[in-house]
Amino acid sequence: MTCYGYFRSSAAYRCRIAFNLKGVSPEFAPVHLRRGEQTQRDFKALNPQGLVPAVTSGDLVLTQSLAIIEWLDETQGGRSLLPADPGLRAQVRAFAQVIACDIHPLQNLRVLTYLKTELGHDQAAADAWCRHWIGEGLAACEEIVEREPDRGRFCFGDEPGLADICLVPQMFSGERFGVDLSAMPRLREIRAACDKLPAFADAHPARQPDYDL
Amino acid sequence: MTCYGYFRSSAAYRCRIAFNLKGVSPEFAPVHLRRGEQTQRDFKALNPQGLVPAVTSGDLVLTQSLAIIEWLDETQGGRSLLPADPGLRAQVRAFAQVIACDIHPLQNLRVLTYLKTELGHDQAAADAWCRHWIGEGLAACEEIVEREPDRGRFCFGDEPGLADICLVPQMFSGERFGVDLSAMPRLREIRAACDKLPAFADAHPARQPDYDL
Repeated sequence: MTCYGYFRSSAAYRCRIAFNLKGVSPEFAPVHLRRGEQTQRDFKALNPQGLVPAVTSGDLVLTQSLAIIEWLDETQGGRSLLPADPGLRAQVRAFAQVIACDIHPLQNLRVLTYLKTELGHDQAAADAWCRHWIGEGLAACEEIVEREPDRGRFCFGDEPGLADICLVPQMFSGERFGVDLSAMPRLREIRAACDKLPAFADAHPARQPDYDL
Repeated sequence: MTCYGYFRSSAAYRCRIAFNLKGVSPEFAPVHLRRGEQTQRDFKALNPQGLVPAVTSGDLVLTQSLAIIEWLDETQGGRSLLPADPGLRAQVRAFAQVIACDIHPLQNLRVLTYLKTELGHDQAAADAWCRHWIGEGLAACEEIVEREPDRGRFCFGDEPGLADICLVPQMFSGERFGVDLSAMPRLREIRAACDKLPAFADAHPARQPDYDL
């Protein structure tokens, strides 16, 4: 199994955590996003979208981090990353999608590039754009976990799962763009619990072989 | 069961198709997005994100269209909206996520409002923004379905499912923003096959009780 990723990609970071939680160690194939390797013919033959992550396993080519993570969960042993109850599964998936659909795509490299090159904005405006969407999205996430009746150490209960896998990389990006996380005590508490686990700590961008500043 | 939606919301449109395919008829509660009803206290008590759709079923409150659709699929009888094989499920989910993560959130009302009010762009620039992301995203979708070895009437095989549920509303939005769909013959063929089914036709925005031009 091979995982194509980039140290700073939030979506690749999610997959790294999931691989670690499931005890699976794919080969790592770096795709340098800032040098545009994701738009080159070789990579687009694998993923027509030209985005990381992509995972290959035999003849199978998988894309989109949430689809990859659910596939991992369905095919690999170990503790499940989603609860068994359909109602709870839906809550966890919805939380993951708040991040994967409504926060992360707005702060993606291709979007920031369009804001700067096509719409003529400077870096300060692009950063403010990111802070706005990440701040608004994480505030909704804080409210969702705040409402949880059975509060545990993680987003939903006492075991880490899909929601935490999405939260930690998004908080990392939030910090990068200067989002004020002080009004999100519950998310910060969950993140601190995640950071103590090797599955999360080892997946951190700074610990990847392609890391550069 | 109650479904909170808006006739023109792509994500609500997806849920309507899924309800129809599963033979479930929830009560419809309109949330008028252009009048800002989604940001009012009553609705945000239901969904802190202030976005449609939201579905209530007994005490359960569900948000995020893909999570709602998978919940429906897991709890209601009838033909499944996802294939049984994990590899195929991952392909279908990835296609749905290309649309739900990487296309639709960029053309959402809140994003267009920010482009116009915070960044000072006119309607023409906002429309060009939408055409760019929808065009690029649907071009990737065309390539994905083009590569399908077992070509059927729908995105993945001969039965409609989650991928088609996401595709049809996105093509409707593409047309609204003037995206050139002529270079996407396979997607147009699939959409035509979907349009023939009452589950899709009855879910069309123009057929909803809150429809206005």
